[in-house]
Amino acid sequence: MNMIEEAARKIESMEVRGAARIARFAAETLKEYAKSVKTNFDEEMRRASERLMNTRPTAVSLFNAINYVMSYSGESDEEKRESLIKRAEEFIEWVDTAREKIGRIGAKRIMDGSTVMTHCNSSAALSVIKHAFDEGKDIRVIATESRPRHQGYLTTKELADYGIDVTLIVDSAVRYFMKEVDVVVVGADTITVNGALINKIGTSQIALAAKEARVPFMVAAETYKFSPKTLLGELVVIEERDAREVIDGELLDHPKVTVRNPAFDVTPRDYIDLIITEIGAIPPEMAYIVIRDHLGYREFGGEEITLSPEHYD
Amino acid sequence: MNMIEEAARKIESMEVRGAARIARFAAETLKEYAKSVKTNFDEEMRRASERLMNTRPTAVSLFNAINYVMSYSGESDEEKRESLIKRAEEFIEWVDTAREKIGRIGAKRIMDGSTVMTHCNSSAALSVIKHAFDEGKDIRVIATESRPRHQGYLTTKELADYGIDVTLIVDSAVRYFMKEVDVVVVGADTITVNGALINKIGTSQIALAAKEARVPFMVAAETYKFSPKTLLGELVVIEERDAREVIDGELLDHPKVTVRNPAFDVTPRDYIDLIITEIGAIPPEMAYIVIRDHLGYREFGGEEITLSPEHYD
Amino acid sequence: MNMIEEAARKIESMEVRGAARIARFAAETLKEYAKSVKTNFDEEMRRASERLMNTRPTAVSLFNAINYVMSYSGESDEEKRESLIKRAEEFIEWVDTAREKIGRIGAKRIMDGSTVMTHCNSSAALSVIKHAFDEGKDIRVIATESRPRHQGYLTTKELADYGIDVTLIVDSAVRYFMKEVDVVVVGADTITVNGALINKIGTSQIALAAKEARVPFMVAAETYKFSPKTLLGELVVIEERDAREVIDGELLDHPKVTVRNPAFDVTPRDYIDLIITEIGAIPPEMAYIVIRDHLGYREFGGEEITLSPEHYD
Amino acid sequence: MNMIEEAARKIESMEVRGAARIARFAAETLKEYAKSVKTNFDEEMRRASERLMNTRPTAVSLFNAINYVMSYSGESDEEKRESLIKRAEEFIEWVDTAREKIGRIGAKRIMDGSTVMTHCNSSAALSVIKHAFDEGKDIRVIATESRPRHQGYLTTKELADYGIDVTLIVDSAVRYFMKEVDVVVVGADTITVNGALINKIGTSQIALAAKEARVPFMVAAETYKFSPKTLLGELVVIEERDAREVIDGELLDHPKVTVRNPAFDVTPRDYIDLIITEIGAIPPEMAYIVIRDHLGYREFGGEEITLSPEHYD
Amino acid sequence: MNMIEEAARKIESMEVRGAARIARFAAETLKEYAKSVKTNFDEEMRRASERLMNTRPTAVSLFNAINYVMSYSGESDEEKRESLIKRAEEFIEWVDTAREKIGRIGAKRIMDGSTVMTHCNSSAALSVIKHAFDEGKDIRVIATESRPRHQGYLTTKELADYGIDVTLIVDSAVRYFMKEVDVVVVGADTITVNGALINKIGTSQIALAAKEARVPFMVAAETYKFSPKTLLGELVVIEERDAREVIDGELLDHPKVTVRNPAFDVTPRDYIDLIITEIGAIPPEMAYIVIRDHLGYREFGGEEITLSPEHYD
Amino acid sequence: MNMIEEAARKIESMEVRGAARIARFAAETLKEYAKSVKTNFDEEMRRASERLMNTRPTAVSLFNAINYVMSYSGESDEEKRESLIKRAEEFIEWVDTAREKIGRIGAKRIMDGSTVMTHCNSSAALSVIKHAFDEGKDIRVIATESRPRHQGYLTTKELADYGIDVTLIVDSAVRYFMKEVDVVVVGADTITVNGALINKIGTSQIALAAKEARVPFMVAAETYKFSPKTLLGELVVIEERDAREVIDGELLDHPKVTVRNPAFDVTPRDYIDLIITEIGAIPPEMAYIVIRDHLGYREFGGEEITLSPEHYD
Repeated sequence: MNMIEEAARKIESMEVRGAARIARFAAETLKEYAKSVKTNFDEEMRRASERLMNTRPTAVSLFNAINYVMSYSGESDEEKRESLIKRAEEFIEWVDTAREKIGRIGAKRIMDGSTVMTHCNSSAALSVIKHAFDEGKDIRVIATESRPRHQGYLTTKELADYGIDVTLIVDSAVRYFMKEVDVVVVGADTITVNGALINKIGTSQIALAAKEARVPFMVAAETYKFSPKTLLGELVVIEERDAREVIDGELLDHPKVTVRNPAFDVTPRDYIDLIITEIGAIPPEMAYIVIRDHLGYREFGGEEITLSPEHYD
Repeated sequence: MNMIEEAARKIESMEVRGAARIARFAAETLKEYAKSVKTNFDEEMRRASERLMNTRPTAVSLFNAINYVMSYSGESDEEKRESLIKRAEEFIEWVDTAREKIGRIGAKRIMDGSTVMTHCNSSAALSVIKHAFDEGKDIRVIATESRPRHQGYLTTKELADYGIDVTLIVDSAVRYFMKEVDVVVVGADTITVNGALINKIGTSQIALAAKEARVPFMVAAETYKFSPKTLLGELVVIEERDAREVIDGELLDHPKVTVRNPAFDVTPRDYIDLIITEIGAIPPEMAYIVIRDHLGYREFGGEEITLSPEHYD
Repeated sequence: MNMIEEAARKIESMEVRGAARIARFAAETLKEYAKSVKTNFDEEMRRASERLMNTRPTAVSLFNAINYVMSYSGESDEEKRESLIKRAEEFIEWVDTAREKIGRIGAKRIMDGSTVMTHCNSSAALSVIKHAFDEGKDIRVIATESRPRHQGYLTTKELADYGIDVTLIVDSAVRYFMKEVDVVVVGADTITVNGALINKIGTSQIALAAKEARVPFMVAAETYKFSPKTLLGELVVIEERDAREVIDGELLDHPKVTVRNPAFDVTPRDYIDLIITEIGAIPPEMAYIVIRDHLGYREFGGEEITLSPEHYD
Repeated sequence: MNMIEEAARKIESMEVRGAARIARFAAETLKEYAKSVKTNFDEEMRRASERLMNTRPTAVSLFNAINYVMSYSGESDEEKRESLIKRAEEFIEWVDTAREKIGRIGAKRIMDGSTVMTHCNSSAALSVIKHAFDEGKDIRVIATESRPRHQGYLTTKELADYGIDVTLIVDSAVRYFMKEVDVVVVGADTITVNGALINKIGTSQIALAAKEARVPFMVAAETYKFSPKTLLGELVVIEERDAREVIDGELLDHPKVTVRNPAFDVTPRDYIDLIITEIGAIPPEMAYIVIRDHLGYREFGGEEITLSPEHYD
Repeated sequence: MNMIEEAARKIESMEVRGAARIARFAAETLKEYAKSVKTNFDEEMRRASERLMNTRPTAVSLFNAINYVMSYSGESDEEKRESLIKRAEEFIEWVDTAREKIGRIGAKRIMDGSTVMTHCNSSAALSVIKHAFDEGKDIRVIATESRPRHQGYLTTKELADYGIDVTLIVDSAVRYFMKEVDVVVVGADTITVNGALINKIGTSQIALAAKEARVPFMVAAETYKFSPKTLLGELVVIEERDAREVIDGELLDHPKVTVRNPAFDVTPRDYIDLIITEIGAIPPEMAYIVIRDHLGYREFGGEEITLSPEHYD
Repeated sequence: MNMIEEAARKIESMEVRGAARIARFAAETLKEYAKSVKTNFDEEMRRASERLMNTRPTAVSLFNAINYVMSYSGESDEEKRESLIKRAEEFIEWVDTAREKIGRIGAKRIMDGSTVMTHCNSSAALSVIKHAFDEGKDIRVIATESRPRHQGYLTTKELADYGIDVTLIVDSAVRYFMKEVDVVVVGADTITVNGALINKIGTSQIALAAKEARVPFMVAAETYKFSPKTLLGELVVIEERDAREVIDGELLDHPKVTVRNPAFDVTPRDYIDLIITEIGAIPPEMAYIVIRDHLGYREFGGEEITLSPEHYD
């Protein structure tokens, strides 16, 4: 279990971070560990997977990665090992190719001459924008700064270095600029069973301003961002981050002052035109189908939904 | 004209700033200058007022102050001087008492136990909140940080020092917290003839989120914020401020990067429940009546609307 | 003061009830009392009017009646008495003719062959319906039962006896029948300065369902229902009535059960197409103008708005 | 057929009532009858099922129960009998466990400290509320009285006896109290293929008021409430009940008075956030998938859709 | 009366047509007739004005013209004649200058680089567009063809000849092109007391599509288009024109076919941002104020509102 | 290839036109050609199908027809031929029966006494209307003329000849008449994966006006109108037709005049209540399921989605 413990700590210390990287890392870790397990394969793997799951119990990509890999089959330990390794490799392949496919599919929705608004710094959303640019389309991007951590600066630099014209604005200026925008593209932290988007704080008010102005709002999301647990009614927990991300200094210590710093907000399906996934462009209402048919969660037992072995067809 | 020139420079250098202070200062300057004018009263005062008007040609409170004071009457220079001085004093009295009256009127709309959201740092809006607190109401305030210049920190400090519980949030978190809010109160830079509010960038998306959640949205605005020129169709110019308020460093110099920094945005009358003025709580549609009946702009000649001498009834 | 005390008790005991009747009764009482006052006219009348005002401090028609009558002028007591009597008679005449005028004006908005929905039992609203019927229009009325006090039964009986076809429904069925409705007509308890309607509980959800289905929503309201105090920011207090109007029996005594019985709710101006008053059909945003120009409340002193003597032009 | 006839009459006389109980009773009856059939199994069972279906031809749970049980397979009569008995038992198990599962899933969507509004008296909706309470959450319920039959009194008593704080209101007060509500939970009579909810009269205006105020609106519905026939375009018939449920006495006999008493209304999918079923929380747009994949209606022949034998996976 | 009869026939035969021209012509006719009247001035003028009014009883500009001119004052016939002539000349001056003023005011609302949509062929709306062009703004116009009479062809030709780029589209394509539009400008047939716009059929669906896309919708309307009679509740009658404007040929004679050809529709005030009049840019809710204060309709007697002699201040 | 070339030209010259006819014709052509192919079956058929596909590369019914027929299976050429012929016959049967089934399903949604609005001339939509009429329902139709090509005249004639009362209106009058409409029924050119409807220009503003007035909006669409390519993100290209369909004459040649004539527009899923297909009435969000499960497009390879052989279950 040393290997597992070490991997778990890398996730906990945020040495490994980001939805895609965590998921891929967990799959690789389980694969390597499976190779080393001598006896009691099921029991060993179960304990390993539980340890990994507990590092970030609310991270949906980790949940999907572990469940995928752990749905191995086989009679003997050797067959099980082979099955697990094959599944881990499938999952890694999946992660490695999803973003590229999303970019290709999403780029078709961006027309030549468009102004595209984006928020925060989502690799999937940027993949869409870059593919559109690569196809020779003349596009301009409006990027929000995305307080409190200013991920919009990363986005601005990344796209500008890529050769795309970028206009940087403060988050408050979203509605002001919406009349110039042809399409909004954002990423996703999690997609729930009823098509709601959990994403970087501020996303839902961009979606609202887009709806008010009849501007299409697209989400770029790998299918491992879809949350099976929401099918069981689970509400996505909105994590609050350290107040010092917002301010520091004396104001923070004032007895009458509280600083609230939720990391995400919830955008209802009514405000979303399309979700671009690696298996195609779908309306948000199809989230249930992605969870059931593509991710393969089917059986209900007690409080659990379980992953059936044949899936990701 | 030395006195006038000196005063004009104080406005230009922003030594004197803020809608109320500029208006009051212009009225005082004209009053003092009138005392000193020996001959050619009309001509001298006209030139003085033009110099002052040109310091901030888009500032509506300055426009209203100068027009009010300059609508003096009388036959002889002495009568005119007296009339002008009286009008200047009336205007100063008006400025000095408006905020207090707004506080008293607006506080009645805030119920005990309420959570109040505010944006930026408006003295009129804070007057409403403080009056409600002074009346013994148990209230809590949610203040946005108001990027790029973080006036929300001033608001937070000012209210917290006053003894009120304040929660500080980033501008992106407005919609997330809207479900906890009972009423929104903001100030105004300008009110147009059709009841639109020009105010600190970000105001219009707060109003939109309030409308979406059926939360009342109130504006606290002295009547000298109402713009007579919009009656002539004039669109309020949205000033863009220095990009360095948003970021500095190399990103600013990137050839593919533009930073846009509009200071204000426009909230349509549909999203405003009530405007609290010193002459009462009115619906935004009444802006025309305020301009015509209270500010007294009546006559149309060529491209001009002029202030009739009898007004502020 | 015996006469005044007796009258006050009649209002308090609800022997005299209904907005119009209370207002008329107060005007008559003041008129009769003025005739009997020997000395100290101002002081006597002030005390009399205060006693009457305190019987129903939230009743806007009483407030308007007393203020109207008490805005008498004159030098001598005799002149004052005459002025007061004249004003009282004017007010009574106003009350006596308003409903009829509203009926005539409102009836023009009801087209032949229409289905009209109404709520509760408003004389002004029924006046509109009856006038339309009297003009020979073929109309049908849908009346809600208006729980908890079932005033809809009175409406149903009154209109059916008048010869009009009436369909009675429960309050929950409003949206179900809205697709058959051509116009909604309701009365008013109070109209606020920003055009909101305070009326019988349930009114606002009828307005909402009408808006959803693009059905015009009209209010029939005498101008003495417009509330001058809301100009000062005052929120209209929503009275809660006895829980026993809703249920009686053991459920009421259950320690875990509360019964809430608010008598009124608030309909925002966005949901109101037109207010029919005795001075014409106006949009709700004009409430401020009715209060200022027709009711004549103009001057602000301290916390008070006062009625100027020349008004009701 | 005596056994069948007797059972049919129990349904017709409403001795057996309620969607769940009728469905369960029909499954049990068919099972018992199957045990007794000597010859002509198919023919006998077909006639039995038709007799039962005709007792309440618009009851969707009865339709689903009979279709489920009758989709037996087998070569010989004995095999068919066994298959039918097994299916009947599956269906009964389904009915017996659905409500509990819905309660567990739905309770996760109710947060600690919430105020929950409910309408009428739905066992599935109350199951959600009770589960949330059982989990130790501090919740308060607002219950409508639900005219004309006042099922809200049952709800109030049931929840208050369970230890939950309940506020009872008239149906007209829904919009007034909506600002205090965190989530609405109601049951379902029928769910149509396009996600519309047919439920107790008044439900749709609660949903509308919830939408207006951005309050989540949840439906608790067993999957046997989903209507396969609506896939064929069939409009759900809204039954009108006896006028005497609304009033009795002379008003009812007035020649100009009609009383309309529709039992249900229709809530469009736009106003529904989530449907809690025993197979998970789903968006209303998934109704088609429930009908096709879970209930198993697949083949189209002539005017009929038929249930394929393999389903309820 | 020969002069009057002849003039009346010119209006009836549509030799004189168009709101502005009819109004001007009526004022001139009354002026000339007044010069010729020898005796019984009041009686003669009353009969003359009635004859003219009956030519087009629903034309609001005619109603306003005649009422304006006929509100003469004076003791002797000679004084009355002078008063009438002066009023007629004022009215003619009013008509002659209104369009130009509207153009100047409205043009300020059109920004450089804008795309402007217009409908039908309104001189006031085109005045706004031309003024914007004259000011050197780079603008493009989208003109609807305006079936059935294709007035959009006139608009297209008029603007193109003026040097402006015009794109002509069918009426069905309005929503398709709305995403390219910066502002809509249309004219008015009539403005009602609650701010509704009666204008060329199709206007209201353009306004709806503009609202959906957050595009400002402006109306250019001379104040003599505001209808005093709507203050009395009068519904504006929507005239239906000859079916042969839509089609001719055999389809028209088919016994199962009806052709409906309403000339106007009604746009509610919610969809209108601003009305540009010659006395300024106002919100639609101010229509009552225009009718009362500018047109001067004040007194109510019986079923009539009358014009007070002092007005048009 | 002569046979193929000839067929291709018939499509290109529009001798064969209309979504259904083109699809059927392509299937028949491929079937006949398959019978004649001697060697190299796969290669020959691939070239034939490519030639046909290129005749109208954006026609979704052609794409679906060819893909369906070409998903043949088999080892030997003979087996492949048989398979292809069988698939072609299935497809033809599908086309031949779909409209009838849609009529039967859709007619159930039209209630006795209804007024139905339709646009353009869609066989599927008219099938719904005629079935309702055949069932003895008393219905009335409002048909738009559908500029520029006036297909509404065809609709009017066709329905009137069938015995149905038809009211013909210009396209601009849609919102005016919407208050009389009980349900809207239109056809479809294409349905996208996220449930948007591409149909005759003007459809989307009818849907918008229906939504505004709470009138149900139904689409009648054969499943071969659903576009698999939109799953890959492809935006449906809106074809612009010849300007001379709109006007001819000198206006067209004016250097400042452009005529735009888009043939279709896009209606978002929010405005659509139901899509009537031959496999049932479904909500628009189910488009993805139709494409995946019914049309059978499943596998993603590179930029392609391919049709799996087993489908149309």
